[in-house]
Amino acid sequence: MNIIKGLEISTINCGIKYKNRDDLLLIHFSEPANVAGVFTKSSMAAESVLWCKNSLKNKSARALIVNAGNANAFTGKEGALTVKKTAEIISKKLKCQKDEIFISSTGVIGEILNHKLIINGVEEMIKHFNNDKDSWNKASKAIMTTDTKQKIVSRKCKIEDKTVNITGFAKGSGMIAPNMATMLGYIFTDADIPSEILQKLLSEINEKTFNSITVDSDTSTNDTVLLFATKKAGNKKIKNINDTNLVSFKKNLYDVMLNLAKMIVVDGEGAKKLIEVNVSGAKSIKQAKNVALAIANSPLIKSAFAAADPNWGRIAMAVGKSCFETSPQKILIKIGDYIIAKNGSKIPSYNEKIVHNYLTKNEVEINVDLGLSKVKINKATIYGCDLNEEYVKINKDYRT
Amino acid sequence: MNIIKGLEISTINCGIKYKNRDDLLLIHFSEPANVAGVFTKSSMAAESVLWCKNSLKNKSARALIVNAGNANAFTGKEGALTVKKTAEIISKKLKCQKDEIFISSTGVIGEILNHKLIINGVEEMIKHFNNDKDSWNKASKAIMTTDTKQKIVSRKCKIEDKTVNITGFAKGSGMIAPNMATMLGYIFTDADIPSEILQKLLSEINEKTFNSITVDSDTSTNDTVLLFATKKAGNKKIKNINDTNLVSFKKNLYDVMLNLAKMIVVDGEGAKKLIEVNVSGAKSIKQAKNVALAIANSPLIKSAFAAADPNWGRIAMAVGKSCFETSPQKILIKIGDYIIAKNGSKIPSYNEKIVHNYLTKNEVEINVDLGLSKVKINKATIYGCDLNEEYVKINKDYRT
Repeated sequence: MNIIKGLEISTINCGIKYKNRDDLLLIHFSEPANVAGVFTKSSMAAESVLWCKNSLKNKSARALIVNAGNANAFTGKEGALTVKKTAEIISKKLKCQKDEIFISSTGVIGEILNHKLIINGVEEMIKHFNNDKDSWNKASKAIMTTDTKQKIVSRKCKIEDKTVNITGFAKGSGMIAPNMATMLGYIFTDADIPSEILQKLLSEINEKTFNSITVDSDTSTNDTVLLFATKKAGNKKIKNINDTNLVSFKKNLYDVMLNLAKMIVVDGEGAKKLIEVNVSGAKSIKQAKNVALAIANSPLIKSAFAAADPNWGRIAMAVGKSCFETSPQKILIKIGDYIIAKNGSKIPSYNEKIVHNYLTKNEVEINVDLGLSKVKINKATIYGCDLNEEYVKINKDYRT
Repeated sequence: MNIIKGLEISTINCGIKYKNRDDLLLIHFSEPANVAGVFTKSSMAAESVLWCKNSLKNKSARALIVNAGNANAFTGKEGALTVKKTAEIISKKLKCQKDEIFISSTGVIGEILNHKLIINGVEEMIKHFNNDKDSWNKASKAIMTTDTKQKIVSRKCKIEDKTVNITGFAKGSGMIAPNMATMLGYIFTDADIPSEILQKLLSEINEKTFNSITVDSDTSTNDTVLLFATKKAGNKKIKNINDTNLVSFKKNLYDVMLNLAKMIVVDGEGAKKLIEVNVSGAKSIKQAKNVALAIANSPLIKSAFAAADPNWGRIAMAVGKSCFETSPQKILIKIGDYIIAKNGSKIPSYNEKIVHNYLTKNEVEINVDLGLSKVKINKATIYGCDLNEEYVKINKDYRT
């Protein structure tokens, strides 16, 4: 894991919900960092999301604070007050503008988040900032809720002759669906890239990573991904998104985001298997994504795959309900590389036992061609997971 | 339960899938019955659905055959052959036109349905037709798959001075979602009503009954509801859908269909609770239905309700992801008659324990007003169910 210079990290247990683990994270940028962000599209967006959207206009970040255990969503005036008080104490203690502060919350919706806990936490956290591997580890753990594993990914690449680092961490496991997963993601780089270009990169890559995962088709009130650039790598400043010096950075940023996204899916509540759904031969990218989502979200497919059961008829069902233009005669259904059905029926050589064995793997693929177009770009990939009894158990017991 | 005159019933175990229970149903109309139908919108519709759509053009029914255990969907030429052979044997044995025969299948998708089993079954069934309570009971059981209970509803009403009967039965529990549930439904009346009027009544009432239920958001390849009129009640023929003599019939038909629809939801795989979701204050009926579906389909809400947990924040989440025009300030959230949240936050007098107690009931309501319109008709009701570990277990083990 690569440490990103130009910032310091502190975590603490401030007592919001969890015992014996940190639930509050504060990151302080020693100098204003460039910043980009993408957020939930929910009309019930949390107070912290509204705050971040406003701070983002400023294109400059001095601090990030994240709490776990309470979403501070649908909390009305008190919720807005908590965010205001949080910004006030950080602004005062770290001597920065309020709109240079980014705030995130994750946890139960509709419960009041006591701002005094946050204030006390901030006062304590500023006493022991650090920037070593241990503090990055702690940061990635402090933002977890029902996550069973921390999620942190690092890459190193070059911009011209300068080495730049990208390190991101994320949380998320339930209420995961595009626009976006119940997830928080924070990516840091020491590269010198202006906020406008960071924003374009983040928005574009987000579509194919965090916005292409689904655990349960639910969309959260708090989803946030922020990308910060501390400008410490010493590279020549990038002025244009088409700058060829950005190629490797973009590839590595995609890699960090895709890996974090997949880690969220694999840590889906009760999930045991990553299911990659590829849909091609559509009339548009949107249509391909729509069908891929219908497949990845189908509880019937998800539970069959949990038992390594190649119940491909359920894949046909999901295509049928999400795309009225195709027909059994047109579509091709594959599980992994195994062709199962084409020309309107199961192929004669289909061997269920072999496909069952394939489905016992931890990462499996569903490949569907809709047969509506030969245009190669009209395709989409969605990353989902299987459905096990534990999902229901976790979500029954969530508040008990 | 009221017997409908003008038809005879036979059931048998023909050996498609199940042992020790009937899996094939044949109904013979002694004279041509009027008929109406609504079907799945899936582009992967089963062979039997395509067959029925064609027979329906004829507006006359002499026979209905239904098998359980195999959907005969995505079965290509062999699947079409099975339907053809089925029609041939019935046409020959019951001396009727092939396009007076209605065929349904339900069960696993993509497996070949052996037409010889059906042919042998028909030859046996025609030897012991009957029309007593026992045969109606057997009919409603022969079409079941993962259903745990038979579903049959009867009503009696008047058209002018003549008593008419309506009796319907249905099957369905998994792969249940609008357009339509994995369900088959057959409704019979002895009233004399022309096919065109039956079709209008069926289509209209279907929207608010079978097309307003959801168990798991999946839509099947085989969904079919057929309404037959044997014309034996001796009422004056109805010539117009606005005929005032139809008022009571329409109300009772709605009652039969709504009750069957609710029975399907309550028998949802692993379900223990009926959840009625009412959404009002929308800009359109379509918007209200869309939000109600998002709530009823949310696995997070469904699993919370399974534990009688009034986790209303998840209701806010589902509204947020399905309606981008509203806001926490506009919406009103009630569980049953208990107001939980309005004006952007939880109300001060909210007592979680009381609402928890309410949620231990077998039938519960979620009521949401979107605050976008005062137009009273801009509302919708969706009937859903809770989500328990058994749902996953049933669907993991379905084919084993």
